[in-house]
Amino acid sequence: MSNVIKEISDANIAYAATFGDDKKNLGLPAVRRFAILTCMDARLDPAKFAGLSEGDAHIIRNAGGRASDDAIRSLIISYKLFGTKELFVIHHTHCGMELFTDNIMGDLLESVIMTDEGFKDVGTSTGSPEGKYIKWLTIDNQVNSLVEDIHRIRNHPLVPASIAIYGYIYDVKSGKLIEIPEATSIVNTES
Amino acid sequence: MSNVIKEISDANIAYAATFGDDKKNLGLPAVRRFAILTCMDARLDPAKFAGLSEGDAHIIRNAGGRASDDAIRSLIISYKLFGTKELFVIHHTHCGMELFTDNIMGDLLESVIMTDEGFKDVGTSTGSPEGKYIKWLTIDNQVNSLVEDIHRIRNHPLVPASIAIYGYIYDVKSGKLIEIPEATSIVNTES
Repeated sequence: MSNVIKEISDANIAYAATFGDDKKNLGLPAVRRFAILTCMDARLDPAKFAGLSEGDAHIIRNAGGRASDDAIRSLIISYKLFGTKELFVIHHTHCGMELFTDNIMGDLLESVIMTDEGFKDVGTSTGSPEGKYIKWLTIDNQVNSLVEDIHRIRNHPLVPASIAIYGYIYDVKSGKLIEIPEATSIVNTES
Repeated sequence: MSNVIKEISDANIAYAATFGDDKKNLGLPAVRRFAILTCMDARLDPAKFAGLSEGDAHIIRNAGGRASDDAIRSLIISYKLFGTKELFVIHHTHCGMELFTDNIMGDLLESVIMTDEGFKDVGTSTGSPEGKYIKWLTIDNQVNSLVEDIHRIRNHPLVPASIAIYGYIYDVKSGKLIEIPEATSIVNTES
């Protein structure tokens, strides 16, 4: 068995042992009626950096915290079916998405699909050209990508103007959330 | 200012005040070299139910914890660039994705795009037919959807056979992770 499986299993047994009625009785809607869209980066723990308890908020995460079609799918479900009223889009400093481009990723995967730690090939498996057909949603400038993402969500035909959207950048070196006014100020130009 | 913004800001100030060198010195790769794909549901806190500290694992979340193209994009970046070796796909009991279908969602949004708490329309904004062009990735049966999702990831042309993939269902009423052997046992039929 993987060491990780054993570690997760042990941690989960400890967690379940203290799982009280406050958690058992939680329903589907997020209690505090907001959602967070942020990056999958391991250094980010939204519950800790934003002070969330189980049940508080829907958390959507992908590489970069980007406003992909899938993130927007999730957001629409969050507010349409479960009454979410506010969305926080949170990108972060020192993001891995700033380190490559679509061309670099396509070439790396064409060379070999196995792991590529620190951009050095270590594997021996074959490569695939399929990476050249994927839009990787890399980031050139964090503020610009945040503004673009919020603009995309704000103007989506299924996102009502009543949903408030705020833009932040999380600093992985200090743990601080920095509000980005030019992202938060974007209004729905359709409304 | 939104009450939520004030609450998050206060919580973040407290978090940053105790942000130590152990966190400041974390790099891009996930320290424990695994990723979790799970649902955005507010009741799920992967860090708590799986025992994670900041820096440990990449966390990918969307509505349902589904193996969408965007989740697979994130996963590929996780292992190709940052050396992730294992993936845990974690669906959960009492998931909102079991409560509707593509047709229901399309009709609800065509009626009105504003919030629809408990499937009752409360808004007055106009509707849009755009919801009928989105695949919502709803779930009919949790075990089946988990098996399908892992099968999709396992056989993706950019996912090497060396990445271990495990399937779990999280029970929101007990906090327990339940391994689903028929999901975990899926092998890469291409290799």
